[in-house]
Amino acid sequence: MGDINHLEETFNQTNYQLSGHGKRNATVLKEAFENVDKELESDRYGSGKVIEEFQEKMAALTGKEAAVFFPSGTMAQQIALRIWCDEKALKKVAYHPLSHLEIHEEDGLKELHNIHSILLADKERVINLEDITGLEEEVACLLLELPQREIGGQLPSFDTLERISAYCRDKGIKLHLDGARLLEVLPYYRKTAAEVCALFDSVYISLYKGIGGIAGAILAGEPEFITQAKVWKRRHGGDLISLYPYIVSADYYFEQRADKMKRYYDEAKELAELFNGCHGISTLPKEPVSNMFHVHFQQSKEVVSELLAAVHQQTNIGFASYLKDLEGTACSYEISIGDLYAAVPKEQLKAAFQLLDKEMKQQVGIIRGG
Amino acid sequence: MGDINHLEETFNQTNYQLSGHGKRNATVLKEAFENVDKELESDRYGSGKVIEEFQEKMAALTGKEAAVFFPSGTMAQQIALRIWCDEKALKKVAYHPLSHLEIHEEDGLKELHNIHSILLADKERVINLEDITGLEEEVACLLLELPQREIGGQLPSFDTLERISAYCRDKGIKLHLDGARLLEVLPYYRKTAAEVCALFDSVYISLYKGIGGIAGAILAGEPEFITQAKVWKRRHGGDLISLYPYIVSADYYFEQRADKMKRYYDEAKELAELFNGCHGISTLPKEPVSNMFHVHFQQSKEVVSELLAAVHQQTNIGFASYLKDLEGTACSYEISIGDLYAAVPKEQLKAAFQLLDKEMKQQVGIIRGG
Repeated sequence: MGDINHLEETFNQTNYQLSGHGKRNATVLKEAFENVDKELESDRYGSGKVIEEFQEKMAALTGKEAAVFFPSGTMAQQIALRIWCDEKALKKVAYHPLSHLEIHEEDGLKELHNIHSILLADKERVINLEDITGLEEEVACLLLELPQREIGGQLPSFDTLERISAYCRDKGIKLHLDGARLLEVLPYYRKTAAEVCALFDSVYISLYKGIGGIAGAILAGEPEFITQAKVWKRRHGGDLISLYPYIVSADYYFEQRADKMKRYYDEAKELAELFNGCHGISTLPKEPVSNMFHVHFQQSKEVVSELLAAVHQQTNIGFASYLKDLEGTACSYEISIGDLYAAVPKEQLKAAFQLLDKEMKQQVGIIRGG
Repeated sequence: MGDINHLEETFNQTNYQLSGHGKRNATVLKEAFENVDKELESDRYGSGKVIEEFQEKMAALTGKEAAVFFPSGTMAQQIALRIWCDEKALKKVAYHPLSHLEIHEEDGLKELHNIHSILLADKERVINLEDITGLEEEVACLLLELPQREIGGQLPSFDTLERISAYCRDKGIKLHLDGARLLEVLPYYRKTAAEVCALFDSVYISLYKGIGGIAGAILAGEPEFITQAKVWKRRHGGDLISLYPYIVSADYYFEQRADKMKRYYDEAKELAELFNGCHGISTLPKEPVSNMFHVHFQQSKEVVSELLAAVHQQTNIGFASYLKDLEGTACSYEISIGDLYAAVPKEQLKAAFQLLDKEMKQQVGIIRGG
């Protein structure tokens, strides 16, 4: 009972899935390149039409004067922080305790750049103005992640963002945006990307989250900042002779999906409501502020795994391919709405949630009865 | 006169070119993916069949126990040197003054890893045993580039390599191979890749030089070394969610070209002889030891540019798209034999060299006469 591979296996056999744009397979590349001219010239170490035009497009999107394409956000963000630290001759930055830099990068910022980080706020909530005004040490840069992914994709209010930005400018603290999912939060803020980015000195956007490209990232800012970022990109080994496989696909899916973020956001709210209507299930945040949220089950990973596998098999709708254990007594997973959700037949979806609710109720009965 | 853009323009209009595998355009990707199953699953942050199988294949090729795919050689090599330096707690390495790390990486090794380099030999020749035995400072690692690209692709004898390897092992100096063009030198050494790699503790191979992939590199060594390299790959921002666009194409062109290196080498010798038969032209090395060599003209870049543009237009054979100025009185460029050379009709080639020889002779006359 509770075989987690069984969960993934049954998920992969479903006809419909709630999350994402579909499988990350060669179709993603083949579709993006299908109508690309065979004669399209490769970029060459950061130069050439294919990379320069996309960079200009992303600069315009973010309202910044310049942008540079990176193979990864990890590389782009470390470099942004390094530039701001060097400018202030102060190797200290501040960010959330669950920032990507803190938990997913093997301490690259410290090991490669010798930059130390101050963790703001606690793990359960987003950074607010008081966390920053209360800083006892000077920092060169503050990094804000919008939305804060590891807590289900939460956001500060736009008013808070404006206050933080004004405070940082006043104090000479550079403000960097981890906008891995920036486009995804624009419908909630009812702002353009440029309006949000105007509050920040530098901005990173991921090209394979909501946009659904193969890989890659954009770093945007003032020309002098971007010139330095390109030097660091070479130092990091990111100035590849050819990045066009990522650029062409990023541009292709950007064109398809940049305007769908409102739909994904509305669908996320709809889906979260369905989860919150089930016994022993809740979402974080309760009402999503982007296309993403976390689903929390008040049952152990083993129990929920078994239960979801049964739902997969009976309903043909894929809920989860994995579950994260929460102290043995609960579990959770992440949903990011993409193209797939709209294809799920509504009646089938409703029936699946009725089954899920019933199964969760029964579990409570079993456990109470046991 | 001497418009260098004119040289590139006329080169691009020729039907045949002496160097390379052809244009770096989207055809390279489309051809590699043409017969790839659409369902082929992406690698995922370094895991998955597509990356693991290719890494195993490259480990077997190099005779090492493990290998890891990197987006770039710049990243792979800095990391190899960092691991060896950390192991010895000594941040000092030795390499050739024209090593890629010294002249093409914006001092990444120093700026990111705080590793200092001792430059061995002089710029005109390859490193020999005496350069190493004569080292006055202790180093953690010695990097050898085979062939030494910036001096036309020169090589030490295999006997010298063996002596260097034995000396380094005896002294506890790690030996790293910059084998960007390793496959390309095997026909000269009459050795397998594994036989050469056995002399080294770690090995880097490029996948877009002789092999002609889109980008990417392999780093090979012992399992413990590769485990550490993967951690550093993540720190550098090289552990992309999907590297398959590079891996699939590297594997495709590896299968096509790994066995053609002997042909490229023979053709390089043939072509170098044609250049050396011309007035005021010589190759470095005189007899190539791989598929590459440099062509030196005893005339200024302006004069040769004009002259080659005329040869391009009259013969339809592309010699050079660029020229490197050598102190105003001479110039040079690099040739790497690939698939294109075999397609050049021999009679047309001969006629082109006769014209080139005649034009170079005339220049001497003009300059003497003037």
